[in-house]
Amino acid sequence: MSTDAAHTNAKRLPERTIERLSEYRRMLLECLKQGRTHIYSHELASMHGITAVQVRRDLMLIGFSSDTKKGYDVEVLIDFIGTIIDSPDGLNVGIIGMGNLAQAVTHYFNGKRSKLRITAAFDVDPHKVGKTVAGVPCYHMDTFVETALQHDIRAIILTSPSSVAAEMVEPITRAGVRGVLNFTSTPLNFPDDIYVEDYDIITLLEKVAYFSKDNNLVPTAADE
Amino acid sequence: MSTDAAHTNAKRLPERTIERLSEYRRMLLECLKQGRTHIYSHELASMHGITAVQVRRDLMLIGFSSDTKKGYDVEVLIDFIGTIIDSPDGLNVGIIGMGNLAQAVTHYFNGKRSKLRITAAFDVDPHKVGKTVAGVPCYHMDTFVETALQHDIRAIILTSPSSVAAEMVEPITRAGVRGVLNFTSTPLNFPDDIYVEDYDIITLLEKVAYFSKDNNLVPTAADE
Repeated sequence: MSTDAAHTNAKRLPERTIERLSEYRRMLLECLKQGRTHIYSHELASMHGITAVQVRRDLMLIGFSSDTKKGYDVEVLIDFIGTIIDSPDGLNVGIIGMGNLAQAVTHYFNGKRSKLRITAAFDVDPHKVGKTVAGVPCYHMDTFVETALQHDIRAIILTSPSSVAAEMVEPITRAGVRGVLNFTSTPLNFPDDIYVEDYDIITLLEKVAYFSKDNNLVPTAADE
Repeated sequence: MSTDAAHTNAKRLPERTIERLSEYRRMLLECLKQGRTHIYSHELASMHGITAVQVRRDLMLIGFSSDTKKGYDVEVLIDFIGTIIDSPDGLNVGIIGMGNLAQAVTHYFNGKRSKLRITAAFDVDPHKVGKTVAGVPCYHMDTFVETALQHDIRAIILTSPSSVAAEMVEPITRAGVRGVLNFTSTPLNFPDDIYVEDYDIITLLEKVAYFSKDNNLVPTAADE
């Protein structure tokens, strides 16, 4: 097996590749839990509804290859994907707006992902500020910039009410945050060097509803 | 202005178009609230980080055109988009797993979208079953198929624990559900005629984290 360290000088990878690597890893972790040591590309592919060629192409792109007859070594591949998508020392994540959604996300995340840590929450609710909510200390939004810098927050999960989301752009930018997962329904204008992923529940549910109507066929992969 | 009823015999639209139509409408509703009556394609485009050409192409695709010098009529366009993406009589949505996330989604949705209604929730927790949670009656998962048929549930929001998500495929399919918004981290194998949108928080946060690392440039639109 060859696992050339091509990743050390890797160019940035396409967004879809990163998504798939994250999904492969989760599937591999599941296999590991079930005691499996090896897996074939066509098995990884079938779990994700893609082709084995795509799996092999993704892994070649990150410099991972395997010529064993048993397929990929599950543990080795998990670690290799980690070197590509994780930060070696982990990454601190802050969460703005500590309502139901944020608490669900925080519970969901902390404890599961060792390399991503939600380490600070921000809100304006006096019942939350100064307390620990969902296991995370909650600070007042007014102190966002200094607190985020102090905690070395690199990514933000934004779950504030959509009506005030635009006001969050300036403090997030000033705090040197590099990436934002935007749960609000407001499209936000960040500087070009900040990565923004819009995670808009309304749009996706409207899309599902559209394709749930009687007269609409489900799109096939060939459509896109 | 011409608003030919091309939509009545419209072919299915691409997924990305549906997403953008949903976003245009939300933006238009916001404009309406602010008292604006007309909007130019380049304004709609700039709010979404796309080009005016794309906006005009999307609206042409659904058979909407406007040659007024003032731009598109906001109210007319809102209604027109509704005829495309909404079901005329509304669409009933069920939600499986009534934890924090589901309650956040339900609160978020009901009251806002008149055409999409979350009308039934399903759980196995005796503290929830038989009660009204987040304004929605909660039924036992064991009664899913008959309850979903009774309520004419066409789409499902799945927020069960990932570990049991695969067990939901069979009842959802049997109940004649047409679309699923899957919040769990488990890829699910539904029959081809059921539309599934995976809404995987871990993957997206890992993607944001990847692009938040120091050495990774933010991708540009040209990359994809």
